[in-house]
Order: sequence, then C-alpha cells, then structure tokens
Amino acid sequence: MAPRFLSRLFSSRKEELGALAEGLLSERGEASGVARARELLDAYTGASAEVKLQFLTLLSDRFGADPKQIDEAIANYVVDPGPELAAQLHAAAEPRLQELLRRLNLAPGGTQVLVRMREDVLRKVAGHPELRRIDADFKHLFVSWFNRGFLVLRRIDWSTPASILEKIIQYEAVHEISGWMELRARLNPPDRKCFAFFHPTLADEPLIFVEVALTRAIPESIAPLLEASRLPIDPKRATTAVFYSISNCQAGLQGVSFGNFLIKQVVEELRRELPHLKTFVTLSPVPGFAHWLARDAKAVLAQEEIEVAKAIEQPGWYGAPDAERVLRPVLSKAIATYLLSAKHSSGKPRDPVARFHLNNGARLEKVNWLGDLSPKGLREAAGFMVNYVYDLDNIEKNHEEFAHNRAVAASRNVRNLLRAKPQATGTS
Amino acid sequence: MAPRFLSRLFSSRKEELGALAEGLLSERGEASGVARARELLDAYTGASAEVKLQFLTLLSDRFGADPKQIDEAIANYVVDPGPELAAQLHAAAEPRLQELLRRLNLAPGGTQVLVRMREDVLRKVAGHPELRRIDADFKHLFVSWFNRGFLVLRRIDWSTPASILEKIIQYEAVHEISGWMELRARLNPPDRKCFAFFHPTLADEPLIFVEVALTRAIPESIAPLLEASRLPIDPKRATTAVFYSISNCQAGLQGVSFGNFLIKQVVEELRRELPHLKTFVTLSPVPGFAHWLARDAKAVLAQEEIEVAKAIEQPGWYGAPDAERVLRPVLSKAIATYLLSAKHSSGKPRDPVARFHLNNGARLEKVNWLGDLSPKGLREAAGFMVNYVYDLDNIEKNHEEFAHNRAVAASRNVRNLLRAKPQATGTS
Amino acid sequence: MAPRFLSRLFSSRKEELGALAEGLLSERGEASGVARARELLDAYTGASAEVKLQFLTLLSDRFGADPKQIDEAIANYVVDPGPELAAQLHAAAEPRLQELLRRLNLAPGGTQVLVRMREDVLRKVAGHPELRRIDADFKHLFVSWFNRGFLVLRRIDWSTPASILEKIIQYEAVHEISGWMELRARLNPPDRKCFAFFHPTLADEPLIFVEVALTRAIPESIAPLLEASRLPIDPKRATTAVFYSISNCQAGLQGVSFGNFLIKQVVEELRRELPHLKTFVTLSPVPGFAHWLARDAKAVLAQEEIEVAKAIEQPGWYGAPDAERVLRPVLSKAIATYLLSAKHSSGKPRDPVARFHLNNGARLEKVNWLGDLSPKGLREAAGFMVNYVYDLDNIEKNHEEFAHNRAVAASRNVRNLLRAKPQATGTS
Amino acid sequence: MAPRFLSRLFSSRKEELGALAEGLLSERGEASGVARARELLDAYTGASAEVKLQFLTLLSDRFGADPKQIDEAIANYVVDPGPELAAQLHAAAEPRLQELLRRLNLAPGGTQVLVRMREDVLRKVAGHPELRRIDADFKHLFVSWFNRGFLVLRRIDWSTPASILEKIIQYEAVHEISGWMELRARLNPPDRKCFAFFHPTLADEPLIFVEVALTRAIPESIAPLLEASRLPIDPKRATTAVFYSISNCQAGLQGVSFGNFLIKQVVEELRRELPHLKTFVTLSPVPGFAHWLARDAKAVLAQEEIEVAKAIEQPGWYGAPDAERVLRPVLSKAIATYLLSAKHSSGKPRDPVARFHLNNGARLEKVNWLGDLSPKGLREAAGFMVNYVYDLDNIEKNHEEFAHNRAVAASRNVRNLLRAKPQATGTS
Repeated sequence: MAPRFLSRLFSSRKEELGALAEGLLSERGEASGVARARELLDAYTGASAEVKLQFLTLLSDRFGADPKQIDEAIANYVVDPGPELAAQLHAAAEPRLQELLRRLNLAPGGTQVLVRMREDVLRKVAGHPELRRIDADFKHLFVSWFNRGFLVLRRIDWSTPASILEKIIQYEAVHEISGWMELRARLNPPDRKCFAFFHPTLADEPLIFVEVALTRAIPESIAPLLEASRLPIDPKRATTAVFYSISNCQAGLQGVSFGNFLIKQVVEELRRELPHLKTFVTLSPVPGFAHWLARDAKAVLAQEEIEVAKAIEQPGWYGAPDAERVLRPVLSKAIATYLLSAKHSSGKPRDPVARFHLNNGARLEKVNWLGDLSPKGLREAAGFMVNYVYDLDNIEKNHEEFAHNRAVAASRNVRNLLRAKPQATGTS
Repeated sequence: MAPRFLSRLFSSRKEELGALAEGLLSERGEASGVARARELLDAYTGASAEVKLQFLTLLSDRFGADPKQIDEAIANYVVDPGPELAAQLHAAAEPRLQELLRRLNLAPGGTQVLVRMREDVLRKVAGHPELRRIDADFKHLFVSWFNRGFLVLRRIDWSTPASILEKIIQYEAVHEISGWMELRARLNPPDRKCFAFFHPTLADEPLIFVEVALTRAIPESIAPLLEASRLPIDPKRATTAVFYSISNCQAGLQGVSFGNFLIKQVVEELRRELPHLKTFVTLSPVPGFAHWLARDAKAVLAQEEIEVAKAIEQPGWYGAPDAERVLRPVLSKAIATYLLSAKHSSGKPRDPVARFHLNNGARLEKVNWLGDLSPKGLREAAGFMVNYVYDLDNIEKNHEEFAHNRAVAASRNVRNLLRAKPQATGTS
Repeated sequence: MAPRFLSRLFSSRKEELGALAEGLLSERGEASGVARARELLDAYTGASAEVKLQFLTLLSDRFGADPKQIDEAIANYVVDPGPELAAQLHAAAEPRLQELLRRLNLAPGGTQVLVRMREDVLRKVAGHPELRRIDADFKHLFVSWFNRGFLVLRRIDWSTPASILEKIIQYEAVHEISGWMELRARLNPPDRKCFAFFHPTLADEPLIFVEVALTRAIPESIAPLLEASRLPIDPKRATTAVFYSISNCQAGLQGVSFGNFLIKQVVEELRRELPHLKTFVTLSPVPGFAHWLARDAKAVLAQEEIEVAKAIEQPGWYGAPDAERVLRPVLSKAIATYLLSAKHSSGKPRDPVARFHLNNGARLEKVNWLGDLSPKGLREAAGFMVNYVYDLDNIEKNHEEFAHNRAVAASRNVRNLLRAKPQATGTS
Repeated sequence: MAPRFLSRLFSSRKEELGALAEGLLSERGEASGVARARELLDAYTGASAEVKLQFLTLLSDRFGADPKQIDEAIANYVVDPGPELAAQLHAAAEPRLQELLRRLNLAPGGTQVLVRMREDVLRKVAGHPELRRIDADFKHLFVSWFNRGFLVLRRIDWSTPASILEKIIQYEAVHEISGWMELRARLNPPDRKCFAFFHPTLADEPLIFVEVALTRAIPESIAPLLEASRLPIDPKRATTAVFYSISNCQAGLQGVSFGNFLIKQVVEELRRELPHLKTFVTLSPVPGFAHWLARDAKAVLAQEEIEVAKAIEQPGWYGAPDAERVLRPVLSKAIATYLLSAKHSSGKPRDPVARFHLNNGARLEKVNWLGDLSPKGLREAAGFMVNYVYDLDNIEKNHEEFAHNRAVAASRNVRNLLRAKPQATGTS
C-alpha cells in the first residue's frame, strides 16, 4: 500500500477511536455506557501499535481541560475567592481524560486494559513527550483505584494456580527463576514463603510479590538461599525472616507504591504465624555501585583506593590470593561511601534500593563481601549485597529522619567501614 | 458538667482528631500511614455525635485547597495558558480533604468507615450547609472508587450467609420484609431471584439489590407476587421477569449510581440462564402522585376532576360501588398526566421512580388501578402501580431522547388515558 | 377406589420397584448403573408411604443372602477350614441388599435418599419387625461410609448460609430455638461457638452439632447462658468452654456415633484458638431422673425420702420456703443415687446422657439444684442439671475403667451427696 | 549389625505394630480411637520396607475371622437356617482386618495412608501370596468408600493448583508429559479439556483423569493432537470430543473402577457445555497387539501373512516404499483379528484397552494405520491406534451384549478388514 493511503487509513482508525471516546464522554446519562466502553477498549486492544500511538496522542491533544471553562472559572474565582469557587476551578481544570478513563472502567475487564494502555504510554513517552500529561492522568486515577485499602494480600505457594505461578516466574526481577522446578524450590519448602498483593479486578495478576526465607541468622550471600539441594529447617526454629526478592509486576502501575505496604503487612503476618521470629531483614542488591565506582568515586575516594579498586575489571578478580586482604577493605569502604554519601538529585541516596528501604524506615545493617557472585551481581555491585533491617520499634523514627533530614539510618558496623585505610598491595 | 467545660473537652477531642488528620497528611512518605489512618478512623468511630460533627466542620474549615497556591497557580496560568499549567492549577485547587480521604483509606476496613462518615455528613448537612463542600469531596472519590468496573454481581438466595440476609431485610425500601419466613418466601422459590452489587472491600455489605419475580404475564398488582402461600411456577416456563423491588443499601453512597447498571446486568444474567424470557418489566410505585394530586393538580386538571378525585381522602374509597366506573377514569387520567407532564426543576419527570427508569431508557408501559392497597401504596399513590418495560432494542434510543429532549417514552395505552372524560357521578 | 383395586395397584408399584432393584443388581458390569440407580431412587422418593413400606418389606424378603450359596459355602468350609474358604463363606452370607445399597449410591445424591430410606425403616420397624434385618444392613454400610475419617468439622456462625441455619433451628433437640433472633443470640456473640460435622456428599445437612458457651466459671444453670440481653465477655478472658447442647440431626443415621468424636475435636479446636481455656465441661440434662424417681427409687431410697420427694408433683414446688433446706438434700441424694447406681441392662448407667459422656471418658463433676426450670427440665429432671468434665489427661483412663469395669468417674462432691440425711420437715 | 540382632529388632518393631493394632481393635468404646489410629499409621509410615512387610504378613496371619466363632455360627445356622442366623454367620466370617481398617480410618488423613498400605500389599503380593487375602479386605472396603456417589468431578486446567498439576504430569500413563510447557499445551488451549475424579478425603490427589481434545473430525493419529505449535480451534465449532488419554493415579485403588463413570460423566458435562458436539470417541492404544502378533497370531493368520508381518521387526519399516501397499493390508487384517477374536480367559477380548471400552458399551469404530509412531506405539502396536465410539443411544445395548454374550460391537469398516487378502510383495 502506498504510504499516503496508509496514513489515511490510520488516520481514519484513529478518528474512529476518537469518536468513540467523544461519544462515551458526551453521553448524557449512562444508558449504554458499559457497551460503549467495551467497544472502545476492544477497538484499542485490537489496533496496531501505530494506531495506538496515534490514539494516545489524540487523547493528549483533545482530552485536556477546556481553556474557556478555565478562564471563566478563574474570572469567577478572583472576584470572590473561597471554597465554592475553588471547587469550580478545580472541576474546570480537570482534564477530560480523567472522566473518560472513569467511564472506560465501567466495562468488565476495563481496569486491566487501562493498565495496559498506560504501559503503552510509558513505552512511548521518551520519544513523545506530549504523552507525559496523559500519563499524569492515568497515574492520578491509578493511585486512587489501587489504594492500599483495596489490595488483598495472598500467599503464593505450591497450591497456587499455575496461571498465577507462571507470572511469578515471568515477573521475578531480582534473582531470575529458570523454570518450574526452581520455582517449586522457592515456594514449596516449609522455610520459604511468598506473598503478593492482588487487586480484586485483576484477580489473576499479582501487582507485587516478595519472597521470604526463614533462617537462623542474617544471611551474607544469596547462593546458599537459592541452593536447590539444601535441607529446609523447621520454620518454628527460625529466628529470622529474610526478604530476598521483591518484584513489581505491572509496568502500567509504575509510580503507584506497593512495596512499603507489602513488606510491613508481611512482617505482621509472619509475626502472627511464627511468634519466635525476631529479625526481619532483607538481602538486597546494590544495583548502582559499580557504575558509581567507575564514574564518580574519584571525587570522594583517594587516588590510591581508586587504583586498587580497578582490580574488579579483571574476570575472576575475587579469586585472587590477596583479594580478601587487599581488595576487601578498599571496596568495603567504597560501598559504604556510596551508600552513605552518594546522593540523588532529591538529596536521598543515589542507590534506588537503598532509597526504597530507607524511605520505608529500615536501617542499613550490613555490607556483605562476595554476597552475589552471579554475573549480574558482579557487574552491578562488584559482588556485594546489603542487609536492611526492619526494626518495628524504629521504623517510624527512621522514616521521619530520612524524610525530613535525609538522615540515613545505618549500623555502627557500616559506618566504621568508612574509616578503613588501604592495605599495602605488595608483600615485600 | 458545666457547658463551658464540656465545650472545652469537646474542643480538645476535636483538636486531637484534627491533629491526627494533619499528621496523616503531612507525613512525608508513608512509613506509618496505615497505622495513623487506623488510629484516626478508630478515634472518629468512637467519638460522640457532637465531636463527630465538630470534626466534620473542622474538615470543612481547614482541609480545603490552599488559597495561596491557587493564586500562584492562576498567576502562572494566565501568563502561559496550556495543559501543563492547567494541570498545576487543577492540583492547586484540589481540596486537601481528597488526599486525606485517600490516606485514610490505607487502613484495612477504612472504606467502610469513610462511607459511614459521609452518612454522618449527609445527616447533618441540612442544618450545617458548610458541610456541603466536604460532601462533594466524599462523593467525588466514591464515584471513582465505586465505579461499576469494581462492583461484583452476586446472587442472593437462601444459601447466602445470614449476616448478609439480615441486611436485605433491613435495607428493603419498597415492600417491607417483616421477618425471616417472609424473606425465605421471597428468595427460596424457584421463580424468585435476587441480585446485589457488592464492592470487594465491603464484602458483607450489599450496595444495592433487586428482587425479581418470574411470571407468565406482566403483573398488575403487588399482592399476588408477595403472597406467601402461592404456588411457584417452573422458571423454564416463565416469559416475563418482573423487577418488583430495588433498594439502595448505603446511605453514605448517595448520588453514586448503581441501579441502572444493576438492572442491565441482571437482564443479561437472566437471559443467559433462561433464554425463554421475553419481557423485562418493573412493577413500580409512584411515590409522588398523591402529593401532586393534592397540591398541584388543579393547574392541569378540570375542577370537576379534582372534585371527583377527592374521594380518595375517605378510608376504603376503593371499595365503593362506583369506584371502578367513576373514580378509575379520573384517577387514571390524573396519574397519566402526572407521569407525562409534571416536571421536576431539571425538566425531567417529577416522580423520582419515573425519572430513574426513564433515564435508564425504559418505557412507561402501563398504569395499574388498585395495584398496591397497602397503607403506603394508598397514601402515596392512591393505590396505583406502574410498569416500566426494559426493551433492550430501544433502551439506547429512549435514553438519548430522554437525556437530550426530555422526551418520555410511553405506550399508546398510557397516552390514551389523558383523553378520558369524567363520567357522571350520579345515577339519575 | 375399592380396596382390592388399590392393593393391586400398590402391589404393581411395589413390583415395579422390586424389578428395578433386581435389574440394578443383576446388571453385569455397570454400563447404566448410575441411570438405573437414579431411576429407582426417584421412584422410591415419589412413592406413597404405603408403597414405600411394601418396597422395604420386599427388600427384607428378597434381598437377603442366598441360602443355597450359604449351604454350599458351609459345606466347603467344613471340609477345609481356613481363611480362603472363610472369605467365601463371608461373601455367601452377605445379604444382597448390601450390594444393592452400594449400587444405589452410584447416583448423584444417592446417599441422601438412602439415609431417608433408613429413616422410613426406623419409623416402621416397631410395627414391622421383619424390617430389623434390613436396618442392620443400612447401619452396617452407614458405619463404614460415615466413618469419622470422612467427616468434616465446620464452624456454624452468623455467616453460615441460611439454608444450613434453618436446620440448626429445626434439629436443636436439647434447648429449643424459637426463631431467628434467638438463633442469632446463640451464634453471633463472640463468646458463643457452634461446630458441626458434615459429610461431603450431604453438604448442606449437618450430621450433629454442639453449641458452646465461653465463660469464666462452670455454670450451674442454663437460663443465664441463654439470656438474650446478657453482655458477652471477651473470649480471650474465658477460662471455661461449656458444651450446653449437642444434637444429632439425621434420624437415618441412628447408631452411627459422632458425638464422642465431635466433642474431642472441638476441644482441640478451641484449645488451639484460645490457649487460655482450662476447663471443658458440659451443662447437661438428666432426662431419666424424674421417671426413675417416680417408679424405681423406692428400692434404694428410704421411705421417708420418697415421701419428701413427692413434693415435686406440686406445681411451683421449688418456690416453697423450705425447698432449699428440706427438698434440696433429699433430691440431691436421689439424683446422685440415680446417676451412680441406677443401671441399664448393659450394666452401664441408666441415664442416657450420663452413659454417653461417661463412655466418652468424661467425669461426673457436679449436680446443679434448680439448673433448668423450663417445663421440660422440671418434668424430666426435677429441675436438675449436671456437669460432666472432659479432662484430657484422664479421658482414656476413665473410658477404660468405664468400658471394662462399668466404673463411673465422679467427683468427691457428687459422691458425698449419697451420704446426706433428710432434714426434719417440721418447723420446731 | 548381625542378622540375628536385626531380625530380633525387626520382630520387635513388628510386634509393636501388631500390639497397636490389637489395642485399637480391642478398645471397647472409642475414647482414644482417633489417637491410637494416628499412632499406628504414623508408626507404619515411618517403618522400613522390611518391617512393613512383616506387619502386613502379621495382619494376614492374625486378623482373619475367628475359626471358633465361625464354627459356632455354622452350628447355629444349620439348626435354624434363616436370615437372622445368616447375618450372624456373615458377621462371624468377617475378617477382623476389616474392622481394624475402619478404625484406622478414624484418624485424619487415615484414608490416604491406607491407600498407600494397599500399594505396599500389591507390590509384595507376587512374592508373598498370603497377602492376597488382606488385599481382598482392602479392596472390599475401598469399593465401598470410593463408591462413585462419593466422588467429585473437577476440571483440570491451567488455573488448577500446581500441586495437583504436578501429579497429572507424574501419573499420565498413556502419552507421557515431559514438562510444564507440554502440560500447558495440553490444558490451556480452548479446544483442550481435562477432567478428574477426586475423593473428598484425598483432596489433592486425583484418582483418575481423562484428557479431551475438541476437533472437527475423528482423529487418525496422535501426533497432530499433541503438536505444540498447532493452532487451537474455537470450541463452539467442534463436532467431536476425543478422549485421547485416560490414566489411573492411585496404584492402591487397583480394581476399584472409575473409568467407566468418568467417561460418561464427562460426556454429560461436555454436552451441557457444548451442545454442538455430536461424536464422543477415543483415540486409544492397542497395547497387546505386537506381543500377540509375535507369539500367538500363527494360529489364526496364514503363514504368508505372518511372514509379511515380520517386516515390523526392522527399524523404520513403516517408511519402506511398499509399506502402505503391502504391509498395511496384512497388519490391518491382523489387528482386526486380534481385536475381534483374540480372547482373554474370561471370554472377553485379550486387549485390555478394548476390554475396558467395550465393557463400557463403546463400539470399536476404526483402526488407524500409523496412528502412533512413538517408540512405545511402534513397539506395542506396530504403530496402530484405535477409535472407540461412545454412542449414548447404544451404550446400554452394547454393554448388555458384551456382558452376557461377549459380543464385540464393531463397525462394518473394522469387520471388513478381516477379509483382506495379502498383496504380492514383489514388484512385478
């Protein structure tokens, strides 16, 4: 087909979708709202990527607030400021897209399609900045719809439907699950737990899940936890619950925060079920360390330390005879520096995982040398892993300090690492 | 206690609640949001009616939008109007109460308390007009949270938990259910159905329910439908589904419309289950007829007709020998006039039940003389009942005509009643 | 219709059922077993009481073991006694009815009809002793089918389906429930529990249920437990679980014992849920006391005591001024004598409730004067009630002593009552 | 350890189990029956294979009927034969093991252990013929307990718990499932169904399951049905339901027949759900054909045919240029002969799959050349597969003819194969 014809075709498909959207919105009353919403959602789902993008752009162009109404509302407000006219102003400034999204949600299964639609928005927004404003509308509604009060916590175990379990395999973002036997090893032993949040209208789609290992000590590396042939312990003898993987599942719900609520509710569930548990701790990756070390560490570390640290560019560096003696103190100091001092533009820590747990009120407890020797662990964090402790008595205080003063709660142990002096590398 | 002391006490309780609300809102991040929301909701639930009212007033006074932010947003917008600054204006004009309500909803069971809170608002708003603006905030959120896409249709029958059934007894608003045996007679026979909408977070609280009788003809009066000793028919032989009672359950969800969606989904369910059903019809009360007849009918009826109609002020009037011959035509003309011509300030019919069904796209089918001889039926509607037909092929058209042009879809039969001439009352 | 014609008609219906039974049994292989079983069960269910009786008699006459096969099996066995030929003998002596019942059970819902069928047998067996042998066949199978391993314990509370709750009202055999509000008062308060055994194929039919009150002391009378307006206590503060009513539901399962298993499993459930509970005790009726006192007590009580005890024939006797001083010791001695010494033909206690709990291993703990002033309580037990304690550490020993030596486990308190001397009745 | 010591140890373990069994049985009343049953079952489960065998032998030796009681019952019966004394005889001849098994079943989870115990019996019975009689006792009870009336049909699909699905993989006996992706391909497409029978006390253990393909024609070979990349069809367009795999899951329930009931109930379910289905047919293996052909065919086939058929001993024989022309008619005649004439000692067909379906009332419809080229299909059946049709109108008649007269219902098409003459093998 000739391009011109194609563009006309697309344009007409786009216009068709646009007309459906206008129809749904203009509909006074709601006699056939469900059916029309269904129709539009089906048409969108079936459309090509190109038509979808055009439709999203059309939403951005045409479904904002009406400038005339805004002007009028402003004119009224400035004459007689007060809550009534503020409410009118608020209504006038609401993008029409928000009402459109609410009406699309009338259709059974609509929520799911809208979440997918925002996924499309997010995938395209980098190249199409005009989509940013409709993204804000989606997010505004999703924050309200996926409010924690509407979420349901469910256990995930070996008696969970396969249709949900395959999503656990698919969505695991921290330590990849390579198949069903590996999944079974993570879910079925009595000293392993998994919990997920679900939303009633997305019944078979987990929103976020956390994998927990019950242990008798704070673990220092990931491999023993994932070891297929390990012997499970009796959960009643466990003292420690380790959150070793936490994964968001729905790209379309980006920015709607679940993780904080999930961890805290899981702590409550576990304490009820296993009152002997004393310690709630993560075993977490440090995804930004290696990048920071290579690029930005020179501003804060000694030249000599930088030189020593370059060893990690060699494959198998951690097996070198003096790695423990020479490299470990330098890298440990470096990672402590990274976690305690390297800042994001918000003034919070630069490492996203640290930011998440510290913001939840956890404490940076321990830095683990050679905690993750997987290719990803070596590449991103020079093999380090970190424990963050959720100490219920201090969570609120830690969070407040972090939120207000950007103060990082960290153990003495971690702080002490900052003071290490590099060892001589030679032996003579 | 002396009033002054009392007012100080109350004031301090109120301030306590107010401080909790500010704390929940100011909380940067959300480390203890769930716990704080729980605390505030519990404090509210346990408070006296007086403290509740003071707290609601406080919400109205202090949790609107911030005028400074609005002024600033207006100033920015007028310089550079466009979607980005419109979005800022929208955000600035959003009452802080909306975010507060979203945060209160974090707590498990929060939604239920918020619905009760709005019940309190609605009970007090008549005497406290300043509550009107917080009512709007509640409603705005509830419309979004109780969007039809989140509702679940469930059958109510004799195997439903008693804890739900007692609410059916309690909430039945049209034809009172006097006890469990009467409830059983409405739910258990094979030719009776009942459906309700539930929201996942209010799992044991129906939002709205409809009672359905399966029959072989459009019924003309309610008594035979409710007759305890009647023999049920085989539902497969039924041709007609009669919606004879529809009740909203949650005063706190006033203005969030469910009825339209409920009826249409029930029609779909019944058609799937019983493909022989051809007619979907209501047997409805006419709650405003008697009041209109007594007060406002003289403008449109002949004086002579008004005089005749006064007979209904006598107890037992419908048993009089010439009631059928003399009264029936006059009252039938009157009720047809009321339904077709008496208007509400919106331009829609004055009768609220008529307004509801016509707005859904139903057609006014038939007026039933002596359809409901219960005290309430006689008092409110001179014993009349009405059938509205849901004809799926015409629902959308009817609704459009009604929404745009205020056109009432009515059968020829009903229209013809308007032309009746009063009979001579004497016999000589 | 003339009797002769009638009897011919009945006879033909009976023969029809008989032929269906033979057909079902003779069927080699099972190609249409389910359908034929269904047909026979439907025909039986729809038959008149007279035809049912005739059919049951036919089963008794024609579905015993085959004498020829028995003779042959005996002849073989006596020549070469041993397990193989004993097995043949066993098979030959099995009534054909047992296989018929197993085949009838192929049909969905068959178990329920068979239970009803045995109800019919039991109702008729007094006048038709030939039904006794088929009763034994039913019972033999039911003992196997309703084995404790197949039963499911379920809580009954206010969220139980109404269709099950109405059976609780109907089957309550100890303290009548007069309606739904009374049922609610028994099930809904937090210090009240109810548990029932169900069988998977009789999903909506409880087999037996027990009602439990949580209290802070062993109760001495029933009225305060049933008091509608009482204030519930916090179950966590309860020390005592009182089994105050236990009712079998299925007449057709007579002789299949559930009660013992139910009480013990409920004790386990309650201990798990409420570890503070220390005492598990009944508040039980003494249904045979008054009858024994009137008829058989003279053999063991002094003539003087008998005379005093006659006071209970007067209405309101318990309100008399000296009832406490004069009557109480005499009647208490009498009831202790009844419970400890009056024997059934089996050598076990004559009182059926005592027999049940003592056989379960409970201990007779206390006799309660004026424990039940309901008409039934006064009529059957002169107002007395009894507590039996389930003390888990001694249950097995008590049971053994009871089963082997007919020894009644009783507290010193109850034994001491035997020694009371009657008080002078005069005032001087 | 020295053998002598060992045997003493084992003997004492065995005696311990034996004493537990006697204790459970002798227990008059049942005060602690559940606990004792639990103890014995746990002890058995934890015992070594050797102790298990000894215990089973002990059961066989000591838990038969009591010869003295039998003698007495015989003596009574012969004096006064009649149903009462026949019942006594029946009771006396019942092996004590049956009551022991019923008591063991009191314990929660007991049924499952008893099924495993019979598995042990069946594994050992070949070398220990004395176990045959206890096997009969197990089977007698299991036939009653696993009566079709107690079974529950459940769909197996991709939303079934993984813990059940892994058993489907494990138990599939006809066409092996190599992993989860293959399982998904069998369960998840809309034109594939799977159904299983469950027993309420073995909730996570399927007893038997059948896999069904919905197609538009009777299939002639298995490979296209199992093809991972095939496109599914719309089930509403299917005309044919193909039962292509049916697997028993519990070795311990051998001889308790489920398959017949399963197929017929699945036919009913499918007809209700998909009224357009017209044909219900199997695609079945012929497991005994190759063995019969090699050993026993010479009695009924011509020497020339036998010679031709020997070609199948060469790997890849079916790819030979003249296989279709020369081999097909000979082998087709041979397999028709095998299915129609080769008999088992019971007079029924020698092929076990044929016996099963014909006994259910199915008709031998078609013989499929090169229907299964898997190693197993080639080895056991020279690549042939067979279709049996379940034609509901004729099932009962077919079954009767088969049960009474050993008549094989077969299509004309299959019968005609018997008349084929071998083709010349040469090329000229």
